[in-house]
Amino acid sequence: MPSKPNILFIMADQLRADYLGCNGHPTIKTPTIDELATKGINFTRAYTQAPVCGPSRMSFYTGRYASSHGATYNNVPLKLSEKTIGDYLRPQGYRVGLVGKTHMKKDAEGMARLGIDPESSRGVLVSQCGFEPFERDDGLHPDQSVSPDLAYNCYLREQGYLGDNPWHEYANSGQDENGDVQSGWYMRNSHLSARVKEEHSETAYTTNRAIDFIRETKDEPWCLHLSYIKPHWPYIAPAPYHNMYSADDVLACNATTAEKDNLHPVIEAFMTHHESVNFSRQEVRENVIPVYMGLITQLDTHLKRLFDYLKEIGEYDNTVVVFTADHGDYLGDHWLGEKELFHEASARIPMIIHDPRSTAESTRGVNDDRLIEAIDLLPTFLDISGAEPCSHILEGRSLIPVINGQSDKTKWRRYAISEADYAWREARNELALAPDQTRAVMITDERWKYIHYEHFRPQLFDLKNDPQEQIDLAEKESHRDVCVEMEAALYDWYRHRKIRTTVSNETVAQQTGKAHSRGYLFGLW
Amino acid sequence: MPSKPNILFIMADQLRADYLGCNGHPTIKTPTIDELATKGINFTRAYTQAPVCGPSRMSFYTGRYASSHGATYNNVPLKLSEKTIGDYLRPQGYRVGLVGKTHMKKDAEGMARLGIDPESSRGVLVSQCGFEPFERDDGLHPDQSVSPDLAYNCYLREQGYLGDNPWHEYANSGQDENGDVQSGWYMRNSHLSARVKEEHSETAYTTNRAIDFIRETKDEPWCLHLSYIKPHWPYIAPAPYHNMYSADDVLACNATTAEKDNLHPVIEAFMTHHESVNFSRQEVRENVIPVYMGLITQLDTHLKRLFDYLKEIGEYDNTVVVFTADHGDYLGDHWLGEKELFHEASARIPMIIHDPRSTAESTRGVNDDRLIEAIDLLPTFLDISGAEPCSHILEGRSLIPVINGQSDKTKWRRYAISEADYAWREARNELALAPDQTRAVMITDERWKYIHYEHFRPQLFDLKNDPQEQIDLAEKESHRDVCVEMEAALYDWYRHRKIRTTVSNETVAQQTGKAHSRGYLFGLW
Repeated sequence: MPSKPNILFIMADQLRADYLGCNGHPTIKTPTIDELATKGINFTRAYTQAPVCGPSRMSFYTGRYASSHGATYNNVPLKLSEKTIGDYLRPQGYRVGLVGKTHMKKDAEGMARLGIDPESSRGVLVSQCGFEPFERDDGLHPDQSVSPDLAYNCYLREQGYLGDNPWHEYANSGQDENGDVQSGWYMRNSHLSARVKEEHSETAYTTNRAIDFIRETKDEPWCLHLSYIKPHWPYIAPAPYHNMYSADDVLACNATTAEKDNLHPVIEAFMTHHESVNFSRQEVRENVIPVYMGLITQLDTHLKRLFDYLKEIGEYDNTVVVFTADHGDYLGDHWLGEKELFHEASARIPMIIHDPRSTAESTRGVNDDRLIEAIDLLPTFLDISGAEPCSHILEGRSLIPVINGQSDKTKWRRYAISEADYAWREARNELALAPDQTRAVMITDERWKYIHYEHFRPQLFDLKNDPQEQIDLAEKESHRDVCVEMEAALYDWYRHRKIRTTVSNETVAQQTGKAHSRGYLFGLW
Repeated sequence: MPSKPNILFIMADQLRADYLGCNGHPTIKTPTIDELATKGINFTRAYTQAPVCGPSRMSFYTGRYASSHGATYNNVPLKLSEKTIGDYLRPQGYRVGLVGKTHMKKDAEGMARLGIDPESSRGVLVSQCGFEPFERDDGLHPDQSVSPDLAYNCYLREQGYLGDNPWHEYANSGQDENGDVQSGWYMRNSHLSARVKEEHSETAYTTNRAIDFIRETKDEPWCLHLSYIKPHWPYIAPAPYHNMYSADDVLACNATTAEKDNLHPVIEAFMTHHESVNFSRQEVRENVIPVYMGLITQLDTHLKRLFDYLKEIGEYDNTVVVFTADHGDYLGDHWLGEKELFHEASARIPMIIHDPRSTAESTRGVNDDRLIEAIDLLPTFLDISGAEPCSHILEGRSLIPVINGQSDKTKWRRYAISEADYAWREARNELALAPDQTRAVMITDERWKYIHYEHFRPQLFDLKNDPQEQIDLAEKESHRDVCVEMEAALYDWYRHRKIRTTVSNETVAQQTGKAHSRGYLFGLW
């Protein structure tokens, strides 16, 4: 076995933690992922740093909280000073590639100011979170903005799906009983099978490209970010996954009328969004959720194909596999659709890691419920690669000691954090807030989940006695002490963001008290 | 008068706010600065964002708190994503130049990562806080690290002061009564006249270079950062300023034995530093402070020469003049030397602004005691230049409405902030802290000054009833509510650092709720 394992960093988009067999879903079929959990470690309380694609991913790729990297929402350019995964792993000899989605927005203004040509190899890397963009595809290609170079469209045309935007016309469309083409953008059409053969669908294609990347990478360890577009909307699946599940598989909606009493203003504003109004209708849920599940099972099937390929070429036992998601999906729970807020449906993510090395034997098949954050992955990868931990920049913790059964749970972090910035959403107008008044932050410990909203009252849920998060306790006198404690913990967290990122702690330690020895003789008589 | 006034941004180094005639010093002679205050507005409660050169200056130049720009101590490289003064003013047609000190440390690692040649024009600008380095001189040139290209040394050699490092041998050395050369690094030698003629001293030379910059700038407005090295240590002055003041001019030390009761651990640790031990001796104060005062008077004299030059060429009435400092100097007060901590001697700075335009008539000669922060200058300069306010990045407030008499004091900011990171100081070892455990932050309002130290108890002073800051009230039950309020205000401040700096609030507002119109049809039935 070579000294450095490969890293296969798989992300599903908008995949709820509880929509996996291994995480308790009663009818979904995810045998490959379930087996991965059996062979590896399954973290059952992992949280995204922000329940929306862009900022979540920027936290995964930088190893830093949204408040630290600053890209707090989709399409907020990541600052050029933020180092990303490739900056750390490439110097360790890794080929660091991307297949799929990142939601990275390049800092074009910063690049212009610093004279970085976006077409240069460095320009490409800083535009792609440090990944070599073997195949970047963010998965959403409306006719009005689809790139003429979209590789998946070129691929589809080669398969005979012609037109300006076969992604939309075929992969994102279905055909109704009258033979009319219907858009996958609309959830009323989710039950239709997509107009591509399964083997030409996005999930299949993305997997093919991952295999291409692995096949052509020789003589060097690799880190591949395999970032699937699904089960994110548009919710439409190719046969046979489009009707593999039925309304019978749709779990009861976690929404009660009691929740609507004394509604929190931010929740109330989000409930006015189209996705919330629609997902609050059982008709919508029954048309969409079976397809959401089908997309997950499809993904699972292609993961089997990928893992089989790795086994075939003898690399499976030399590859650490991570399976996670950027955030969840409300799917109507709490009368909400989409994500962005902090209920478990939205903020909790799957996090399964299979480390094939013998050091990980003691945790195989373990469900570990300690608090994990998305930012823990990058330090884990650094640990695997042999890189310095860069503790002056990275805000997460390596999971390798946990995987190796050498981490005392009582000494693990006490709180996990997730952040929101809903400035771009209609809710902001609804609430009459300025664009810089829309921040919210969740803090959770073993039992409590507390959410601080700027300009509004907080929320508090008791995850132990109310795992469905139905009862907001923040205004109860009985829970005042808990709120005070959680606010204190949040304040502490804010004070400890890593801001001095251009000098390592080791360098500081070496320089401490050394000014005189460098000739700066101040304070001497 | 051209439409855009010049900006003369003068900074003295380590100049206490109270060591000016206009700010109440009983014997110091600063007629030029006093006159500037008479013609302009004198902000009597201005605070540095960090009482140490580097981070203070990075806050001045970026318009952001140290917690936001991240260069929390001397020689912490400023991240390349931080825009600086030149980035804002140059596009407005300004020539933006530097004469003197910045204490900027370039982010060499970041430049290497992003492929920016440090020798290129862009590389130079990002290495120099965005200033065209017309003459950069940080003022401290020990033999072991003096640059062979130091312009001031070349100048001195031209004047006949020969040797490897005439800065040290002449400008920073004196001759004792035996004719022996003595080093200006040692405070026991402060009373000796420097071995350069006054007109060849650093303050004179720096002023000459400012005049050179102004002389050669035609046809465009300019912003000149004239950044004097003095009265910062080494405390040594050329004749006649070396003995213009005597022990009689040395004010009573603001240090009492009562202060040593129940000493705060951080203060106590700083009291072990050489500068504190030495400045606690009256012999040292009497040898140094008269020279400190002489250096200030010398600076004042050269400002007169500069202002006369501006008048002579007809530019004085077209130039906004700012006079400030990066931080103060304990000079033995509170048993401390140097700066870094938050007593008024260290954290308060002079801030005088003369705006020659008629719009400023109503505030001429006014002493304004509202809370001003160093970061207010950059928004002020943007306002003068006609640039967009960039409120998504800049954390200060333009002072132009105040200067124009149009700012309601009751609606001004309620709190001012200053920060410290003493990781590099011996105090850290003394306190057995890791390099990332050394942050402290001061918050002050009209009356109270509260200091939060990580890992130690806070301090609280009543500036109204105890302007000498002798009585720490933080542990008094009677002042518990004040402490709670100040902590709440600090928590609020932390939550409002500007982190989403790559998208303007105006852009956010334009994009809010527009995803559907761009073709991203999520949540629709």
